[in-house]
Amino acid sequence: MVRKTPSKTVPERAARVTIIDVAKRAGVHWSTVSRALNPEKRHLISPEMIERVETCVREMGYRANALASGLRTQRSHTIGVIVSHLGDPVHPPIVRAIEDCFAEIGYVTIVGNTDNYPGRQGALIERFIRQGVEGLAIATFARNDPDVDVCVEANIPTVSVFRAAESELIPSVRVDDTRAMEIVVAHLADHGHRRIAHIAGPQNVSTGYHRYRGFRRACRARAGDGVSPSVVFAAEFTVEDGETACAQLLREHPDITAISAANDMLAVGALRHLRANQIRCPSQISLVGMNNMQFMDAIAPALTTIHTPTADLGIQAAKLLIAMINDTPIETNRIVLTPELVVRDSVARIRSVARSDADLAAS
Amino acid sequence: MVRKTPSKTVPERAARVTIIDVAKRAGVHWSTVSRALNPEKRHLISPEMIERVETCVREMGYRANALASGLRTQRSHTIGVIVSHLGDPVHPPIVRAIEDCFAEIGYVTIVGNTDNYPGRQGALIERFIRQGVEGLAIATFARNDPDVDVCVEANIPTVSVFRAAESELIPSVRVDDTRAMEIVVAHLADHGHRRIAHIAGPQNVSTGYHRYRGFRRACRARAGDGVSPSVVFAAEFTVEDGETACAQLLREHPDITAISAANDMLAVGALRHLRANQIRCPSQISLVGMNNMQFMDAIAPALTTIHTPTADLGIQAAKLLIAMINDTPIETNRIVLTPELVVRDSVARIRSVARSDADLAAS
Repeated sequence: MVRKTPSKTVPERAARVTIIDVAKRAGVHWSTVSRALNPEKRHLISPEMIERVETCVREMGYRANALASGLRTQRSHTIGVIVSHLGDPVHPPIVRAIEDCFAEIGYVTIVGNTDNYPGRQGALIERFIRQGVEGLAIATFARNDPDVDVCVEANIPTVSVFRAAESELIPSVRVDDTRAMEIVVAHLADHGHRRIAHIAGPQNVSTGYHRYRGFRRACRARAGDGVSPSVVFAAEFTVEDGETACAQLLREHPDITAISAANDMLAVGALRHLRANQIRCPSQISLVGMNNMQFMDAIAPALTTIHTPTADLGIQAAKLLIAMINDTPIETNRIVLTPELVVRDSVARIRSVARSDADLAAS
Repeated sequence: MVRKTPSKTVPERAARVTIIDVAKRAGVHWSTVSRALNPEKRHLISPEMIERVETCVREMGYRANALASGLRTQRSHTIGVIVSHLGDPVHPPIVRAIEDCFAEIGYVTIVGNTDNYPGRQGALIERFIRQGVEGLAIATFARNDPDVDVCVEANIPTVSVFRAAESELIPSVRVDDTRAMEIVVAHLADHGHRRIAHIAGPQNVSTGYHRYRGFRRACRARAGDGVSPSVVFAAEFTVEDGETACAQLLREHPDITAISAANDMLAVGALRHLRANQIRCPSQISLVGMNNMQFMDAIAPALTTIHTPTADLGIQAAKLLIAMINDTPIETNRIVLTPELVVRDSVARIRSVARSDADLAAS
């Protein structure tokens, strides 16, 4: 199901042969092709490998990407970071950690914000590469994002952080989104909830997709206990879409007792809808978010959520990127950090709800 | 008190003569010097003015800044924005508005974040200029910031937004910080408060400085009504510093009934301290913030605050910057937007406090 590389049929198309095509033909990773063709780096690989790569290059008529050539002849000591939405407090700690790691080695970090506009990510990547950044940390890749190929083609060290690009071509650093939702469903089920809903995020990005899949799997595993899931999909990870999704959820599934929101922005939106409709959280509807973004301890009720280790994501991404920039071997292409539950005030026990309802009726 | 230009004594020093020095000698704005020396722009000004500028240039031995020459020979269609703290939700709406305005004319916006580290602003400005951005919108300038001269010297269109640079050399777009604090003090005084405290922000930036001055002035104007101010200073506009400042405030001035925080981050910190010490807001201490940043309607209690028109700040800054990039005359160098009070749940009437205390004592 996961498409590893774009399905380009090289000989038939007029499209330019890419470094990825050469790597496939040679049966090596694209970074090996890159090294084999770089006079300063080729001592790192065997003469046989250089020979094999050069043969493929000749046979396929490969030429290096114009975007890459001549742009990084000298070090700019600058890296680029791309985030999807500056207003989502999950991003600043990631950016800050990357900035701090790179500042230590004298690098300046510049940030691009896509605000989820189509095309803005591609425009930012191109601009950053033209401006000679030495590396990119990208938190906006969709699953199987074709822009990954642009980065690889430009031979620019690139790390996918927070959202995974789900591509073999570049490394990624993310939190275990599936596991996070298992923890949430377990917490709600342990509190007596059986009719549990998920406000799912967009499914074209790894975070939304894997949290949704994790939720479904966790509910299936507890079907024997009577756990019955329902799901609505939010178009974006925003407060507004959380509000809309919560309204839809209560309309279509009025018997739910708990909501797992795919992130805290959606949870804040759900809370806004509940408050506007005088539905009490947690006594009538329990709610769990994800990310533990800033201010979630200050809202009413303080939000029970999953802590995403954002600073660690940034640090791990920076370490990978620094290694790639310096052409140091990296140990792993996939770093997956562990999520943790943060228990606050937005989840109630189902029994106590029944009791307080009875109390209310009696009063 | 406001130092208009750095006090360079040109003839005695080995330091390079700057475009600002030439402008002073010629008695014109630096942008006029810039035009007079640019073959493509000099038709915009009179031959007499060109003559006068050229004479000063010869006499003073001025040479254009190396950073500026040859860098913007072709349009990059990129602008740079610098903010002080990505984690402060006041900035994203400003950045988004600037991005959107520039996206409309085909420009890409890249962002630098200083996180209030010394030197990071200067490093970002230099990097942006070297990378050929066509303009800068800077939300981080300190009052009389020497980095303003760097931008002017590089002849790069620059706008100070949110924080004012308080320099004649570049335009600024800000909210009326003094007026904002007058509104806050009036609101608190009208609710019966007399012992009112201010958690002031850093005084080296215009926002912190003018809010503090506005607070003092408003309290002085109501001294006849018995309004008695007290002030503590926070080192930075952060939640942590708000928490510390609130603790200090209650230690040094235990009789206060209301706090005006210089921004919402400080207010959230103050709330955190109050909650940790079982001091109820608003029944025991009333609290007002400033900026009306994201989530302030969702915290407990929902925060009464001043709405800073952040999107408008961004739009006005972008309009100015676009005019400067296109060398269109701008109408004004100083845009000051109007703040508005947003009443929520964090201010109580002093009388009702007394009553509820009596109730508590009676119960």
